[in-house]
Amino acid sequence: MIGIDWGTSSFRAWRRDAAGVIRARVDDGPGILEVPAGGFAAALDAAIGPWLDVEAGPVLLCGMVGSRQGWVEAPYLPCPAGPAEIAAALTPIPHRGARLLLVPGLRATDAAGLPDVMRGEETKLIGLLAETDAASGLACLPGTHTKWARIGGGRVLGFATQMTGEVRATLLEHSILGRLAAADAPGSDAAFLRGLQRARQAGGLLHHLFGTRALGLTGALPEDETESYLSGLLIGHEVAAVLAEGAPEGPVHLAGAPALCRRYALALDAFGLAHRLHDPDLALHGLALIARRLTA
Amino acid sequence: MIGIDWGTSSFRAWRRDAAGVIRARVDDGPGILEVPAGGFAAALDAAIGPWLDVEAGPVLLCGMVGSRQGWVEAPYLPCPAGPAEIAAALTPIPHRGARLLLVPGLRATDAAGLPDVMRGEETKLIGLLAETDAASGLACLPGTHTKWARIGGGRVLGFATQMTGEVRATLLEHSILGRLAAADAPGSDAAFLRGLQRARQAGGLLHHLFGTRALGLTGALPEDETESYLSGLLIGHEVAAVLAEGAPEGPVHLAGAPALCRRYALALDAFGLAHRLHDPDLALHGLALIARRLTA
Repeated sequence: MIGIDWGTSSFRAWRRDAAGVIRARVDDGPGILEVPAGGFAAALDAAIGPWLDVEAGPVLLCGMVGSRQGWVEAPYLPCPAGPAEIAAALTPIPHRGARLLLVPGLRATDAAGLPDVMRGEETKLIGLLAETDAASGLACLPGTHTKWARIGGGRVLGFATQMTGEVRATLLEHSILGRLAAADAPGSDAAFLRGLQRARQAGGLLHHLFGTRALGLTGALPEDETESYLSGLLIGHEVAAVLAEGAPEGPVHLAGAPALCRRYALALDAFGLAHRLHDPDLALHGLALIARRLTA
Repeated sequence: MIGIDWGTSSFRAWRRDAAGVIRARVDDGPGILEVPAGGFAAALDAAIGPWLDVEAGPVLLCGMVGSRQGWVEAPYLPCPAGPAEIAAALTPIPHRGARLLLVPGLRATDAAGLPDVMRGEETKLIGLLAETDAASGLACLPGTHTKWARIGGGRVLGFATQMTGEVRATLLEHSILGRLAAADAPGSDAAFLRGLQRARQAGGLLHHLFGTRALGLTGALPEDETESYLSGLLIGHEVAAVLAEGAPEGPVHLAGAPALCRRYALALDAFGLAHRLHDPDLALHGLALIARRLTA
């Protein structure tokens, strides 16, 4: 099989043999924003064309390639969903006789009846589910849009997205807070923990955000600590909001970029929650598990 | 006297005679960001130079002209502060023999010991204080950085800033939320109230922000309602955070741009709080009251 995780700004592909051994790997293909309209077939051939000549098995694609801005739009599948439901809802893409299949995103509805969506993370969660035998639990996939998913019985039961990463980046780049932040400052655990602590005090996130500026103006927050403090503030508010809806019984399952997972681990520690760190390369694992359902 | 409200992107000046009658007015001078380094004296002369030749009374300036990026930096005065404390802390600026005096900004410290600052709003609050005879109350000056001030005994007792306006503008212009928002859409009270209602549900602001995108993606929020919905979400979280620290006994005193005050009034209504709308032109009134302390 071939597995492809094709996101907004990244393209990663693997070819595995029947025994599960990785035979080839490409990590530097173009993200979907770099692909011109109508150019997805050519972009795929440029990245892994020769693989398609020798691979008779399925070619599974996940990520934003299945969004409205991608190659073909794959509808969102409702939760709860696991490998079986996802394998039964793949969207085929005709291409050179290869067996291209798009993984659907997932949608969930919260207690108030409002929708949430994910695309790409469902595949990572399928990979994560296989790594835990807990009957139920809470998974956290930190990123631009961090996903908190309730998992159980081998399926994704529901989830909520927190816009933390994008809000952090947008405020640093485009708001008055960025003027007080040193560019490329190394992360500071002490400043991050200070932001986390502030998040647990009264006043609300929008007040705490302005407070970051007030701290800088009064000389109480050095410019090279602003980014870490802001990150602690936002992740602290995020974790507090998640916990307000109920703390998990077991550890929080964390998977994502190591530096960001480290910050979430610090935050979970501060809130008294255990965590378990998973392989950040879950997408390949998830695609293989979905493919296995196809041939079963 | 001459009063000048010189902000980041605006310059407004008035000349009043001893009877309090406005004799001249300029509304279109350059904001401090438009003034080149070392160019404040020339900018003032270009805007109101002839007034300085005929005016023997004080020329009071408030706003960001007294910030680090302004003409001269006026230190922040600690709360509580009223007209007397402010009049005693003016910073003179030598200029052509005129009696130029800079109004200081205010600083406050919250229960957790963290700082907050304002510059320009203190003068509006002095004007507002004179319009209410309540022994104590809560004032709200909506804007890019909305100020919530506790007032009492003719002084500003303390305040907290909410970064709501700038967060709203930054997310609309630079985040993924802006892609789902129609430019220049007329405001929608229904969408604003829907955002307000969402703010009172579980999940936290960072989740509700992403939910705005999920609503758009699933067709549940039209593009021309995104801006109003987002505004309701943010102002709802803001008002909820302010009320969490205690509801005021009397009405909330609102002063600012009419369209924005209207939204805050809707939000206060939704939270069951009365409000009283004040003249948005409070700065001139405040400057005159401070000047009166000088000659007294």
